[in-house]
Amino acid sequence: MNFINPLSKLISHPFLGTATPSEYSPIVLTGVLLSLIVVYIASKLGGEISRKIDLPPVLGELVAGVIVGASALHLLVFPEGGAEASNSVVIGLLQFINNLTPDAATSIFEAQSEVVSVLAEIGVIILLFEIGLESDLKELQKVGYQATVVACVGVAVPFIAGTVGLVYFFHFPVIPAIFAGAALTATSIGITSKVLSEIGQLKSREGQIIVGAAVIDDILGIIVLAVVASLAKTGEVDIVNVIYLIVSATTFLIGSILLGKFFNKSFVGIADKLQTRGNIIIPALIFAFFMAFIGNAIHLEAILGAFAAGLVLDETDKRKELDEQVKPIADILVPIFFVTVGARVDLSVLNPAIPSNREGLFIAIFLIAIAIIGKFVTGWAVFGQPGINRIAIGVGMIPRGEVGLVFAGIGAASGVLDKPLQAAIIMMVILTTFIAPPLLRVAFKEPAEPQKPVEKPVDGVTDS
Amino acid sequence: MNFINPLSKLISHPFLGTATPSEYSPIVLTGVLLSLIVVYIASKLGGEISRKIDLPPVLGELVAGVIVGASALHLLVFPEGGAEASNSVVIGLLQFINNLTPDAATSIFEAQSEVVSVLAEIGVIILLFEIGLESDLKELQKVGYQATVVACVGVAVPFIAGTVGLVYFFHFPVIPAIFAGAALTATSIGITSKVLSEIGQLKSREGQIIVGAAVIDDILGIIVLAVVASLAKTGEVDIVNVIYLIVSATTFLIGSILLGKFFNKSFVGIADKLQTRGNIIIPALIFAFFMAFIGNAIHLEAILGAFAAGLVLDETDKRKELDEQVKPIADILVPIFFVTVGARVDLSVLNPAIPSNREGLFIAIFLIAIAIIGKFVTGWAVFGQPGINRIAIGVGMIPRGEVGLVFAGIGAASGVLDKPLQAAIIMMVILTTFIAPPLLRVAFKEPAEPQKPVEKPVDGVTDS
Repeated sequence: MNFINPLSKLISHPFLGTATPSEYSPIVLTGVLLSLIVVYIASKLGGEISRKIDLPPVLGELVAGVIVGASALHLLVFPEGGAEASNSVVIGLLQFINNLTPDAATSIFEAQSEVVSVLAEIGVIILLFEIGLESDLKELQKVGYQATVVACVGVAVPFIAGTVGLVYFFHFPVIPAIFAGAALTATSIGITSKVLSEIGQLKSREGQIIVGAAVIDDILGIIVLAVVASLAKTGEVDIVNVIYLIVSATTFLIGSILLGKFFNKSFVGIADKLQTRGNIIIPALIFAFFMAFIGNAIHLEAILGAFAAGLVLDETDKRKELDEQVKPIADILVPIFFVTVGARVDLSVLNPAIPSNREGLFIAIFLIAIAIIGKFVTGWAVFGQPGINRIAIGVGMIPRGEVGLVFAGIGAASGVLDKPLQAAIIMMVILTTFIAPPLLRVAFKEPAEPQKPVEKPVDGVTDS
Repeated sequence: MNFINPLSKLISHPFLGTATPSEYSPIVLTGVLLSLIVVYIASKLGGEISRKIDLPPVLGELVAGVIVGASALHLLVFPEGGAEASNSVVIGLLQFINNLTPDAATSIFEAQSEVVSVLAEIGVIILLFEIGLESDLKELQKVGYQATVVACVGVAVPFIAGTVGLVYFFHFPVIPAIFAGAALTATSIGITSKVLSEIGQLKSREGQIIVGAAVIDDILGIIVLAVVASLAKTGEVDIVNVIYLIVSATTFLIGSILLGKFFNKSFVGIADKLQTRGNIIIPALIFAFFMAFIGNAIHLEAILGAFAAGLVLDETDKRKELDEQVKPIADILVPIFFVTVGARVDLSVLNPAIPSNREGLFIAIFLIAIAIIGKFVTGWAVFGQPGINRIAIGVGMIPRGEVGLVFAGIGAASGVLDKPLQAAIIMMVILTTFIAPPLLRVAFKEPAEPQKPVEKPVDGVTDS
């Protein structure tokens, strides 16, 4: 680009020709800053538009990620998705400003992508920590058998139908099929409970069962993810290993909650003693990161540990202060996760105009059908409740949310899911989240026009 | 380590032998989490002990960083400092858990260090943004000529004496000498104003001059840093270039403040319109990161842009809300910067028992002497104020703080400063911060015992 811009030579770094990687550091930082600017603008535009049309902001962040990512604008692309430095608009800009060689551009691209990926992973750790903080264990004990049965059916049916279908009809290897099947299991608590409260059905029998089941679903989903991701790492499905993983994930979660009751007091004691800034948030993050490390070290998932840490700290006196301090941190880190999940997906692999994409399209249609039917049937799992609106319960369980995206994100980052399968899962999350609110209103025989919530909502985690 | 721990084989990742870098991602994440745990524990221990003995927490964070870093525990080391994967305790642990090959360990070490370095750099960007938010431009206009003269003398004397001394007595090349000289310029506003308020002298004539001069010093220091760092990048000291850089840094700062008055209204308008979470902090960060990018793109420093962004947003109605939301973010990111600055330094190069270290020791002693004398003389720059306590003013300007550390951090990361010079600057920052409070009490002829502040202090940026 030199001949069009003599200035780029004038302001170039002369030493870059023979630079070692550490000399690129300021440029890597600039690349990360530009990527974060893209992420934040995308997340705000997407989130706000989504809210305007009465959908959860997280859906808008995801779609905005798809737009700025590998599918369209190439403002945010990743080497694992097959992108090269020359595909990245951000790297192109850095190359223009700093007059980089192609080799330098490649190593900056890789370093920048690594940093953004880790930031996204820290984002999802903070997200699960926050979800843990918001899940009230005592409430959970109250929801009862009905919700538990609904939750278990809603996890088992789509998981089994999805996995078996992918293996038998589409001849997928077992590991990616299990991963995709598992991505169908989670229910989004946020969107359903928001719609229910809008139509005044949150406290109804149906509403209570749906919300209770969605909470349990989140927990089951995280356990399923930990197990499935661990299987994906070893590449083998061995029944002993599966049982070992299920037992260890469950033990880890329950064990940390039980041990956590002791830790709680030390946490409050430490936070009270500390006099310098960050006296609550820093000990909380040390705990969350440590639990995430343990989750990783025992070959489950970091997010399982972060979720457990959130559940534990939820029970302390400091909860309110902690909630308030975690919020801005989640606000700046969680969108990095959602936007990059969208950005990593290349939806063009589902473009129906290209004949070789047909297979991928059929997979997407199949997954979406299973995702809807597999949750819809849960309404008939309710027992001993004559006259209950089974359709409403089934419909209420349909939307997938953060946990579904966590599956897609971790699957994409680990390389287990190929591009069409990734794209299919993202389409599934988008569509199920999209159709649930109108269907739910119909199921409860409510007028289709949404009643706007009165308060100015400052929401997010609980909002999708 | 296999033979001592058969378990490590059992729980190892079989594919790692032939892994591509992206397959290491979960281990890089684990390494980053462990590094952050080390950073946070060190920062809290150091900060709290420091506060107990009535010193600013940031000094404790720095010393704790020295202890966990290359000088002692090797829990946090960086490849730029000459460390290898085998020197890092964190990597050793990861190797033990995951049964990594040495090559894998090296690439994980490099990726993890890159991520932690970028997090530290984002930390210093947030720090300068916060300092900008806390610097009141209107107050600054009031401090008057006296403070400006004191500030300018306090920047010029140590800068010139330090640079010239290093070149003539110690035969340093010009660029590192200028960098080290520049590191002597900044005054810490936090520690001085805290001590002044404790001994009831904050509103005295001397107190007002000291605080005003320290504020101006911070700004002059940031401009000097931007100019010097840019010189270091090109490796040449060309008088035209120096003038160009000084003019552009000053223009950038003043220009963004003037243009910022227009942006202010748009910022408040946008923040009011946004309905989703992060409606204030995300636009603020977009602005701060964008300004940091511009600062970098025009070959000054990212932190200059972040500081300007803070000055601009300081003037808005949303300032209070923004302050509150920036705080937890600064709490988790800024310590990464301070601890890694300490961790990067290898103080063993100043060990007097080893004869070859003598040169480094003399450099350290020279820099500390210049740092103290260069600020002490500023008391005699005050004019037209008969009977003023010139010694108190000179002593009040002695402590270096965040901005001094920012110099050391950026110098170390850019490779301009060799190890003895880095270590000498860190010692200079530690010692000047350490001696100022007792000297200041003596200068004001106050009893040496400190009066404890009454409120439970939640401090940090303004506290060193």
